[in-house]
Amino acid sequence: MTEGRYPRATKKEIRRYARLQMKKYRDEEGLFLGEGLRTVLELLSHLPDERFLDALFVAEDQLKNLSLHETMYREKVRLIGPSEGDRLSGTVTAQGVIGIFRQNERTVPISDAKKVLVVALDNVQDPGNVGTIIRTSAWFGASSVVCGSGTVDRYNPKAVRASAGSLYSLSHYQADDLCRELVSLQENGFTVYSSSLRGRDLKTCDTSLEKTVLVIGNEANGVSREIASIADCQVSIPRGTGGNNSVESLNAAVSAGILLASLSL
Amino acid sequence: MTEGRYPRATKKEIRRYARLQMKKYRDEEGLFLGEGLRTVLELLSHLPDERFLDALFVAEDQLKNLSLHETMYREKVRLIGPSEGDRLSGTVTAQGVIGIFRQNERTVPISDAKKVLVVALDNVQDPGNVGTIIRTSAWFGASSVVCGSGTVDRYNPKAVRASAGSLYSLSHYQADDLCRELVSLQENGFTVYSSSLRGRDLKTCDTSLEKTVLVIGNEANGVSREIASIADCQVSIPRGTGGNNSVESLNAAVSAGILLASLSL
Repeated sequence: MTEGRYPRATKKEIRRYARLQMKKYRDEEGLFLGEGLRTVLELLSHLPDERFLDALFVAEDQLKNLSLHETMYREKVRLIGPSEGDRLSGTVTAQGVIGIFRQNERTVPISDAKKVLVVALDNVQDPGNVGTIIRTSAWFGASSVVCGSGTVDRYNPKAVRASAGSLYSLSHYQADDLCRELVSLQENGFTVYSSSLRGRDLKTCDTSLEKTVLVIGNEANGVSREIASIADCQVSIPRGTGGNNSVESLNAAVSAGILLASLSL
Repeated sequence: MTEGRYPRATKKEIRRYARLQMKKYRDEEGLFLGEGLRTVLELLSHLPDERFLDALFVAEDQLKNLSLHETMYREKVRLIGPSEGDRLSGTVTAQGVIGIFRQNERTVPISDAKKVLVVALDNVQDPGNVGTIIRTSAWFGASSVVCGSGTVDRYNPKAVRASAGSLYSLSHYQADDLCRELVSLQENGFTVYSSSLRGRDLKTCDTSLEKTVLVIGNEANGVSREIASIADCQVSIPRGTGGNNSVESLNAAVSAGILLASLSL
């Protein structure tokens, strides 16, 4: 294959991969979509190895942005036109770069690090929040993110975009019964903190523990009652001294970030 | 007007208010759109007074969710059908509730509080981030949010949704020349902290100061060079002990939240 000569995507390929917009087919195939130049570059730069890239659909005018001559991905490139990009990405701004990536599940949340931090997501509904929390967890060195079955799929394209490439930077998995998973972690020595609007200031808790789980709850309703009831401690983020009572809560990903910043010390 | 009987929206009203999707018309009219039941309820619950609601467009089946019989807004209600909702909201999920609200600009960032905290947004491009940062600023008691002219409009419908009603909870304004605005704040005794990937840990800075400004920069490029150069201190959020180097940065709104949590103590 000579420089700049790539095959066109076939109808069969487009049909197959466009279905990855739906969780059912992502689960079946073990693949997910990365949409847009920035997201694709971030995922490529964190790829465990080249098998994790299944295919790369690129509009002709976007080839120059991918520096493909330097990569091992050249044989995975397929050229697309605007309508094929729209079909694959399902978003209005497809930008002509769509990667098909392989899911990377590791189900063991325990690492060799001295301090082990696990983040659990209980009914988090916004894919942007899920992706942002995974990105933040990676930044703060969490070893794993556990998603309860009520939490939106972390391989949803919007979650993938918000995760900024971090899906390949830490372990994450789905727990069909999050409550049971947390109890099992407790049995393995973990202390479970549940975020709440009416808990203790995390700064007054012992954050020097070796094994901790932080549970982040639903955007509107917080952590579910069942899970809050088994947690070892309810933690809150206090308002600032001039904090205005007319704001009811913080965004879920912002709360997670503030609590993780305290816990990761 | 008897219970449950509201006039239908006229074509003229729909045409006029649909234009508020564009900043130019928002600026001209001093109005903005709140889209969806949750956003409208949040804005209504924080409304300074009833003049800040210009009109309320509601689908018949959504009337029950607004408890209008208890409110003073009844005469502002207009009934809409699905196509009118789509025109007004411009989003796919209009949900049949769209409020037209009056902009609330206060340009004086100084309050009587003992500690005064101002947040400045330098080229923040994502409306979700802008709204989330305003919401977080209100939670932590910031007195004002200053938006540089390169920052996306805080009255953008997506910013309004992310702000969760907080647009009426604190002062916010646009500075055509953010650099000059910051210098003017410095002349009035403010210390300017600029967020950076290569700054000092905020925990090592003196955060007991009475008057501080926190500058949050562009999602991809951070705070612009010009503004970083006039700042009194560059501040960073350190990675966790097990923090993974393969994640380049935190989301802008998450960074703002973590820094504000430290500064508002």
